[in-house]
Amino acid sequence: MNLILIAIGCGLIAVLYGLFTSRQVLNAPAGNQRMIEVAGAIQEGASAYLRRQYTTIGMVGVAVAILVGIFLGPVQAAGFVLGSLLSGAAGFIGMNISVRANVRTAEAARTSLQGGLTIAFRSGAITGMLVAGLALLAISTFFYYLVDVRGLAPNDRGVTDALVALAFGASLISIFARLGGGIFTKAADVGADLVGKVEAGIPEDDPRNPAVIADNVGDNVGDCAGMAADLFETYVVTVGATMVLIALLVGGTPLHVGGLMTLPLLIGGVCIITSIIGTYFVRLGKSGSIMGALYKGFWVTALLSVPAIYFVTQLVLGDLNASVGGEPAGLDVGAQAKVGEFTGAFTGWDLFYSMLVGLAVTGLLVWITEYYTGTSYRPVKSIAKSSQTGHGTNVIQGLAISLESTALPTLVICVGIIVSYQLAGLIGIAFAATAMLALAGMVVALDAYGPVTDNAGGIAEMAGLEDDVRTRTDALDAVGNTTKAVTKGYAIGSAGLGALVLFAAYTTDLRTFAGDLGVAYADINFTLANPYVIVGLLLGALLPYLFGAMGMTAVGRAGGAVVEEVRGQFRDNPGIMEGSVRPNYARTVDLVTRAAIKEMIIPSLLPVFTPIVVFFVIRMVAGTENAFASLGAVLIGVIVSGLFVAISMTSGGGAWDNAKKYIEDGNYGGKGSEAHKAAVTGDTVGDPYKDTAGPAVNPMIKITNIVALLLLAALAGHGAG
Amino acid sequence: MNLILIAIGCGLIAVLYGLFTSRQVLNAPAGNQRMIEVAGAIQEGASAYLRRQYTTIGMVGVAVAILVGIFLGPVQAAGFVLGSLLSGAAGFIGMNISVRANVRTAEAARTSLQGGLTIAFRSGAITGMLVAGLALLAISTFFYYLVDVRGLAPNDRGVTDALVALAFGASLISIFARLGGGIFTKAADVGADLVGKVEAGIPEDDPRNPAVIADNVGDNVGDCAGMAADLFETYVVTVGATMVLIALLVGGTPLHVGGLMTLPLLIGGVCIITSIIGTYFVRLGKSGSIMGALYKGFWVTALLSVPAIYFVTQLVLGDLNASVGGEPAGLDVGAQAKVGEFTGAFTGWDLFYSMLVGLAVTGLLVWITEYYTGTSYRPVKSIAKSSQTGHGTNVIQGLAISLESTALPTLVICVGIIVSYQLAGLIGIAFAATAMLALAGMVVALDAYGPVTDNAGGIAEMAGLEDDVRTRTDALDAVGNTTKAVTKGYAIGSAGLGALVLFAAYTTDLRTFAGDLGVAYADINFTLANPYVIVGLLLGALLPYLFGAMGMTAVGRAGGAVVEEVRGQFRDNPGIMEGSVRPNYARTVDLVTRAAIKEMIIPSLLPVFTPIVVFFVIRMVAGTENAFASLGAVLIGVIVSGLFVAISMTSGGGAWDNAKKYIEDGNYGGKGSEAHKAAVTGDTVGDPYKDTAGPAVNPMIKITNIVALLLLAALAGHGAG
Repeated sequence: MNLILIAIGCGLIAVLYGLFTSRQVLNAPAGNQRMIEVAGAIQEGASAYLRRQYTTIGMVGVAVAILVGIFLGPVQAAGFVLGSLLSGAAGFIGMNISVRANVRTAEAARTSLQGGLTIAFRSGAITGMLVAGLALLAISTFFYYLVDVRGLAPNDRGVTDALVALAFGASLISIFARLGGGIFTKAADVGADLVGKVEAGIPEDDPRNPAVIADNVGDNVGDCAGMAADLFETYVVTVGATMVLIALLVGGTPLHVGGLMTLPLLIGGVCIITSIIGTYFVRLGKSGSIMGALYKGFWVTALLSVPAIYFVTQLVLGDLNASVGGEPAGLDVGAQAKVGEFTGAFTGWDLFYSMLVGLAVTGLLVWITEYYTGTSYRPVKSIAKSSQTGHGTNVIQGLAISLESTALPTLVICVGIIVSYQLAGLIGIAFAATAMLALAGMVVALDAYGPVTDNAGGIAEMAGLEDDVRTRTDALDAVGNTTKAVTKGYAIGSAGLGALVLFAAYTTDLRTFAGDLGVAYADINFTLANPYVIVGLLLGALLPYLFGAMGMTAVGRAGGAVVEEVRGQFRDNPGIMEGSVRPNYARTVDLVTRAAIKEMIIPSLLPVFTPIVVFFVIRMVAGTENAFASLGAVLIGVIVSGLFVAISMTSGGGAWDNAKKYIEDGNYGGKGSEAHKAAVTGDTVGDPYKDTAGPAVNPMIKITNIVALLLLAALAGHGAG
Repeated sequence: MNLILIAIGCGLIAVLYGLFTSRQVLNAPAGNQRMIEVAGAIQEGASAYLRRQYTTIGMVGVAVAILVGIFLGPVQAAGFVLGSLLSGAAGFIGMNISVRANVRTAEAARTSLQGGLTIAFRSGAITGMLVAGLALLAISTFFYYLVDVRGLAPNDRGVTDALVALAFGASLISIFARLGGGIFTKAADVGADLVGKVEAGIPEDDPRNPAVIADNVGDNVGDCAGMAADLFETYVVTVGATMVLIALLVGGTPLHVGGLMTLPLLIGGVCIITSIIGTYFVRLGKSGSIMGALYKGFWVTALLSVPAIYFVTQLVLGDLNASVGGEPAGLDVGAQAKVGEFTGAFTGWDLFYSMLVGLAVTGLLVWITEYYTGTSYRPVKSIAKSSQTGHGTNVIQGLAISLESTALPTLVICVGIIVSYQLAGLIGIAFAATAMLALAGMVVALDAYGPVTDNAGGIAEMAGLEDDVRTRTDALDAVGNTTKAVTKGYAIGSAGLGALVLFAAYTTDLRTFAGDLGVAYADINFTLANPYVIVGLLLGALLPYLFGAMGMTAVGRAGGAVVEEVRGQFRDNPGIMEGSVRPNYARTVDLVTRAAIKEMIIPSLLPVFTPIVVFFVIRMVAGTENAFASLGAVLIGVIVSGLFVAISMTSGGGAWDNAKKYIEDGNYGGKGSEAHKAAVTGDTVGDPYKDTAGPAVNPMIKITNIVALLLLAALAGHGAG
């Protein structure tokens, strides 16, 4: 039997799980009339935003698809379109479930905490399994079509270019969705808070605030749809790049290489099954710890994945002790095989251990993020404590924690790189990254749970439900802050490994097709002693900073527009504050929609055009070889700097948010105290950090890398093939 | 005549200028009894702090000197001691002038703005000329001693190692001084503001605040002494590394190489003269613009430096059209000489143009920093505007600007690298960096002017002088914020070029002495495709983040201690707030002193130990060749990330500070408005950014690089030589 079909089967199971579980969620009671009304407004706003966002992205997408078709060929263009459509679908479906689960979670929370947790987590799990399932289906069916239907050799140039184009489609949608959604959610959030909490003195989610629906819409389009597109992209790029690297690097017959290329797909497939099993373990224990319940699901999935991965590796490779072949001995990186270092060939066991490294890295990153963003540990407590002496010290301590939070993840990633490289070279690193992403279904489930509970709290407030409902949804929501940070740390951490794989694909591609590109590979100097490499590193490192600046500014500008809109509604219609007149929610949603769409375009195109501009400018001044060297350095520069920018922003932002929650739990004076006001400032600062600029760095890194690969393909004239 | 003697002569002229001008400053009237009393307290505190700081550093220094002596030899140890002592002297003398000029500036400002400007700028110029002069004297006399007295060949290993050891001495003192002084000044500033302005509601510099003297002491030990040590270090390292690189790279007889090695010294020498001339052009014009007056001095110096540099280049090289020799053709980086690229040899003209590139980079960096931190441009105004909607939006916009402010300097530095490299290869980059540093005398003068005016304002306030005195000193001080940011941008920008030079020294060293190190150079893989290089880049990039986190936390912690001390004094002695009892200033100064000294140790040792640990750990797991590759990558990683961290912190901090000033000038509601309160928060956040963590990144980068060079020397067993 063709092994790819197993992977396709697992992808279909994920989709079936989604359908089956959606039915369960949708069958739950949706609450009273007022709740249904509020939820309806959120649904409407979210759909309207996503429609406009996808229309805009669609226009960019069509243009890019045509360019891909012209420069690379129709199959590549088809890959691009497939990647885009499924990425969009993952976000769209996730958002659709999320906007229906929110009100049902609120209703269930009227009865019990477990009831609310069940609905919210199931809704998250649907998004999670759809993200992983659709991503796996995209790659495996496309690969199946190319190899088994079209009859191309698995390591044929047409196949690898098509896989890269598929990843490009996913990434391009993802950066728009992450950034557009991120700007929407934070502009609405910051705007609503500033004018509501600060100026008008009304509580969060008060129905009198005209921005309150926009704020709740934001949770769905940013934290749910944007995040889903992001993880879809990360999955497709990582698994796809692993397959491309195998095709480019591993010697042997096409049949042999093809077998190894299906392994990442099967790993993804079985881990969807272990993720589904894991979801059934998410239950409150005796301690009543919500985080504990979620982690139970995660750890069950991670542990079950070990034998599952062993099983499929055995299935694909047969004897795990036999040499799998391996990277060609003449490879740059294998040139100096030394004590304890990778020597060019590896066995099935080496691959298996590399994947265990990937799982261990995932577990450690989850644990570290929990430490930096959870309310039980030093970092968050230190920010809460420093809030006592004012806004300034809160922000200073938050920035210190955000800088510090990069240290342990970096060390873990470095150790992961070294160990997996020593086991099986670049292929080892690629499989470690694949194993990380194989858990995506479960990780996304944990994350997508967050916006549902956040919305549930909002609906409870707006519909005037009993206080203990809000208490229960708040408890669910606090955990959501940490799980959201966890996903971001995980995504960027996997990017750390994934970028190395992409860079290896870039250099291997260059070596293989140097002739077509009109250069001698030996003349391309990738050493740090080449000033053009340093220039590339600096320019690459600049990207996350510039991108971050644009994202932060966009939120500030759009948030300011919300403030003015809301002030205007209060002024023109005094009945709103008295509670006698319903504010015009839709107008605010529409305003934020237009602002977010406008603001997302330019920053999203930055990583698309930078590699192209760098290549052609350096080629002009210093020749083609140095242009390739400089471009390669841009790819490494963007990850080296992006890793730190992204981790510091996402962990720091999560820590600020939970420091506020920690004070609201009654520490340092509790709600309304001066410390609380300072903590609200920190939270506001952390918002665009953690939900707009920080997470969008991950797709940005990938796009830069993929555009470079496509540029190579276009320059080498693969379009003919 | 021996050309080095000219450089030594110029260094002596700088010292004479210092002596002569100090006399002028000290002869100015010191004001009334109360002013002299306040100034006395500041002097006493500053001297007490610096004594303790230097005692602590001295103990570390003696230990390190012994280690240098054991592992490298007595001459190297002597170099280390010389570098340390003169670095300390530059800071100490600068501080001593500054604490005497402050009160005289206040007194002169009673008569006229020009009077205050003259005293304050002269005091800054003394520090500036002493920094440049002593740095030049340190290198040139040491080089003269080694070559002309001891009779070593200029490119003898003993000479280059000794120059590196000299730079190490300067850097080690500098990081302690920058960080210790930075923690002191900001802990006192933040603490004084929080408890004074925020809690007690008394104005800045109010004599009732027990932390007010500590705050003024901080300006002198941080912004003056710390900055002077930093720039001394930057000068010695840059000029020293240029000489080392010439010795290692340029072929030809020792005599020929020796001639070229004196060129950087002469460049430094003549630019001291042009800087001294420039100082006499600092006068208020008709417009009364203080910034304009300072810039006049800077531009005169920069323009006069062009013919001066031409003159000495001609003097040293004779025919500028003749080939100077150049880098060996077999060099890594010269391996692929392509269109428009450096081809191994260069002429005097090439060197001259490279130095013009350095001057142009300096001018552009000054202009960009002015744009990002001056009150007349979009960035500062945008922060001020966003203050209207609260603390949160002020900080968000400030962070956005701080991220954005890295873009143009990075582009300028990249263009500078490319152009100077195309002119004369690595030597071209080295000379560009040297030309940048040659202007250090003038740049430091502009910077050291700042703390004097800041103190003058404080003294005016505490001594109860007329309001228009404070208005004049405030006008002088506002400009100081920008000039302070300018120096930091300049220092870190020069580090961007300088680090490349240091890295080139590292690789050339490795190649030359690979045999002694027991490796084959060809086996050391510095390409980006080597995962150990990526690991090195990531670990190097982590350093500025971790270091920044430590610096920020230290300020938060020490600032918190100040708050408690001041609260205690107010509580125990109610007469203080009534103005009937003088607070115990000395106790606060002593507290901050102890805190700053304690907090500076560990972060300062981070860059010393990291290269050593990385080398030995990677050697253990992946062999000596990969250890050298990884260590090399650490050096590049620390600059690639450090450049962004430092620029974003120093420019962002300056912008926050001036946004507050812009509001205080009457915009957006002026002093006391809600916008002003938000701007004060931003300013507080920016304080440790711009004055503690950010500027200390510059010496940190250098130390990492120098320790790596010394590690090579120690491993190769040069100690015998």
